[in-house]
Amino acid sequence: MENETRQEEIIRVAAKLFKEKGYSAVTMRDLATTMNMKAASLYNHINSKQEILEKIIMRIARKFSVGMTTVKSSNDSCIVKLKKIIALHVEVSSQNIYGMAALNHDWVHLEAQLGPYKKLRSDYENDFKEILKEGIAAGEISPIKPDVMMFSILTTLRSLYLWIPKKEVIHLEELTNNLSEILINGIIKEN
Amino acid sequence: MENETRQEEIIRVAAKLFKEKGYSAVTMRDLATTMNMKAASLYNHINSKQEILEKIIMRIARKFSVGMTTVKSSNDSCIVKLKKIIALHVEVSSQNIYGMAALNHDWVHLEAQLGPYKKLRSDYENDFKEILKEGIAAGEISPIKPDVMMFSILTTLRSLYLWIPKKEVIHLEELTNNLSEILINGIIKEN
Repeated sequence: MENETRQEEIIRVAAKLFKEKGYSAVTMRDLATTMNMKAASLYNHINSKQEILEKIIMRIARKFSVGMTTVKSSNDSCIVKLKKIIALHVEVSSQNIYGMAALNHDWVHLEAQLGPYKKLRSDYENDFKEILKEGIAAGEISPIKPDVMMFSILTTLRSLYLWIPKKEVIHLEELTNNLSEILINGIIKEN
Repeated sequence: MENETRQEEIIRVAAKLFKEKGYSAVTMRDLATTMNMKAASLYNHINSKQEILEKIIMRIARKFSVGMTTVKSSNDSCIVKLKKIIALHVEVSSQNIYGMAALNHDWVHLEAQLGPYKKLRSDYENDFKEILKEGIAAGEISPIKPDVMMFSILTTLRSLYLWIPKKEVIHLEELTNNLSEILINGIIKEN
């Protein structure tokens, strides 16, 4: 990758290792070996395995937060806001396949950043639910329980990282459009 | 549980232990302790931890297969078939919260039954996709890529076991109806 710092490279390789072997099973020595570095040099760039995990997870979690803040503060209709959130998930997931695995599975291993991570996650869900509620109030969205709608949509969006790599070719814009169609308009054909 | 055989009780308790500690970490001794039995007595009812895992997973996998076969062979429209599949997932998931965790995460630990399990899973997905394709051909379902539709719907349905226990009260019929509405008609309000 061009213009990547050594630290960024370490984080990228570590995310792949965590995905393959599980966070707990990976040692700093494994990481050094994979990177063809001496363990001592590794510590010139990063303090600990925990710091790597924090950087992987919090960087992505903040991307989602920033994206949600932008969407929330726009003057778009609720449906357009949801479409932008779907696009956000496709974009962040496709760019961070391994990091998304850490975000979804290894957040339990966070130490100092566990609280901040959980806060970002629950803020995100609250904002998401708020958009649904506004949409219901405005008559844009069907008056179904916001909890069930959020579960259904977010579960699909949060699993994209598992699914995208399995497709031989992914046209991200087409995927975003298809998902918007399915998640917002449903699959039934209008007569 | 009434009329539960000792073997069924062992399987039920083991599924909970697998969920809490992970399949690999649970020993037959842990299971015997939890059940307040001697390890030797445990072996009167079951041969091995692997046999327990097989029974947990294959029993549920076969429920889904049988359900799909019934739905597939009916004369219902494709939309009604999908609604019945949604109801099947709500029913099986709500009755097997711990078993569903094993089905989703511990199937990788299957040995002799790994092939048969994978076959059931891929047959299920093929049948699911076939219903979507028939629905598109019949003009009932929007002509969106069946792969993306299946990913979106099945991801939500397969995660129900994670979500149902978090709700204080779940009215399963209402949940089935809400999910049908969301997954089939979408969340946008018809004008």
